[in-house]
Amino acid sequence: MGTYTADIDVRFRDIDAMGHVNNAVYATYIEQARTRYFSDVLNADLSRVSTVLASISIDFRRPVELVDGEVIVTVDVADLGRSSATMVHEVRAGGEAAAEAEATLVSLDPETGDPAPIPEEHRAAMESYHDL
Amino acid sequence: MGTYTADIDVRFRDIDAMGHVNNAVYATYIEQARTRYFSDVLNADLSRVSTVLASISIDFRRPVELVDGEVIVTVDVADLGRSSATMVHEVRAGGEAAAEAEATLVSLDPETGDPAPIPEEHRAAMESYHDL
Amino acid sequence: MGTYTADIDVRFRDIDAMGHVNNAVYATYIEQARTRYFSDVLNADLSRVSTVLASISIDFRRPVELVDGEVIVTVDVADLGRSSATMVHEVRAGGEAAAEAEATLVSLDPETGDPAPIPEEHRAAMESYHDL
Amino acid sequence: MGTYTADIDVRFRDIDAMGHVNNAVYATYIEQARTRYFSDVLNADLSRVSTVLASISIDFRRPVELVDGEVIVTVDVADLGRSSATMVHEVRAGGEAAAEAEATLVSLDPETGDPAPIPEEHRAAMESYHDL
Repeated sequence: MGTYTADIDVRFRDIDAMGHVNNAVYATYIEQARTRYFSDVLNADLSRVSTVLASISIDFRRPVELVDGEVIVTVDVADLGRSSATMVHEVRAGGEAAAEAEATLVSLDPETGDPAPIPEEHRAAMESYHDL
Repeated sequence: MGTYTADIDVRFRDIDAMGHVNNAVYATYIEQARTRYFSDVLNADLSRVSTVLASISIDFRRPVELVDGEVIVTVDVADLGRSSATMVHEVRAGGEAAAEAEATLVSLDPETGDPAPIPEEHRAAMESYHDL
Repeated sequence: MGTYTADIDVRFRDIDAMGHVNNAVYATYIEQARTRYFSDVLNADLSRVSTVLASISIDFRRPVELVDGEVIVTVDVADLGRSSATMVHEVRAGGEAAAEAEATLVSLDPETGDPAPIPEEHRAAMESYHDL
Repeated sequence: MGTYTADIDVRFRDIDAMGHVNNAVYATYIEQARTRYFSDVLNADLSRVSTVLASISIDFRRPVELVDGEVIVTVDVADLGRSSATMVHEVRAGGEAAAEAEATLVSLDPETGDPAPIPEEHRAAMESYHDL
């Protein structure tokens, strides 16, 4: 265990006028990895949990092209706070790093919208999966 | 002068299953503001210049909804180096900050792909527009 | 009255590797025109009404490019049945037809999911707007 | 042989505010199947061949949801003319038809932009694959 990975097919529609995967699509790839991580590791549906993305930062290393076929997105937990978790990601294509990213998620109280403790079962699942 | 702004219509397709503008779409809004900035301020076509996005970071402040109708994206130049420029952005909806972002662009030599000086006319246009 | 029109900005992200607005984006432009039509003519929120798209067909006439800046999408009602409405659209760029399209919408009973009569106020608004 | 199929993962970003795969994304799924078909059957790169989409029509049968995980898109050739080919598609999710579609592609002379004969090797590959 330790690092979760998601394989994501590159689509023709992901490519922009420059002939490379568009910068915004990296955020979509990371979101898709997060969606699978929530499903596989937390046994949760990302579209139903009361969790929001507070921030994302992406460093682009090299362009991804359609011929790369797929990217692999890694998911690690760099910091696990009371109500927030910071995930670090690598987007790999053709065996090389195409981007590195960091995303901070915050659990919200669905009633008030205020930050709320990460559900205990999610915390336990993350600690167990990543040996935190 | 000082701060460039771009008005961008929110599309139904920008909204995701949570009922808000999807996180990746903020990068598209910022790219669209950059496209117009290149056209209006630098008199250049973003899809033809040899400039790449090296990094982007976005802090999400509040969700944007379809009913907001449009967002306003600001463009300022926070740092103007030899071959790179760091732009700061605010995404506003309904008169409030919905996100803050920073994006670093790098000029490349179209032959070698190595970093190259920002074209002199672009540098001059940015300095003039933003009173740098 | 007669023909409703929506102006839609072309985004950098709409362009694909061929350098033209991607074919799927025409469906998004038409959806956006429909969204505004529902809001302006039917005084309804497309994401809240119990209406689904049953079919769409698009004939592409000429490519749209980023330099076109915007497209204009027309909305006419070609057929107004008991539970379905067929809309015809033209997508215009630079004063020329870029595509012609037809879309059939069906009203559903939100309980059963079966076809249901178009709400009377929507029918009246369409008849009045388009002189049907 | 006979029918080509492409498996395409459903992304969180494909889902719209209604909780279903957005209608325009079906065109993207079909384009992705076409991209793989060109690569696998015609040994060609869709973004480099001088072929345009002349028309597409889609009949929606049932909504696709994120929980469906993937769709299967079939590719058959219904009509093979001198310069145009009409492809028929089924989009299947969870073992059921979610949509049926028809798309007409036209080969162009890259110099003049006028319709041109389908390359002989593409015609032969289609005839062989689909037993035409």
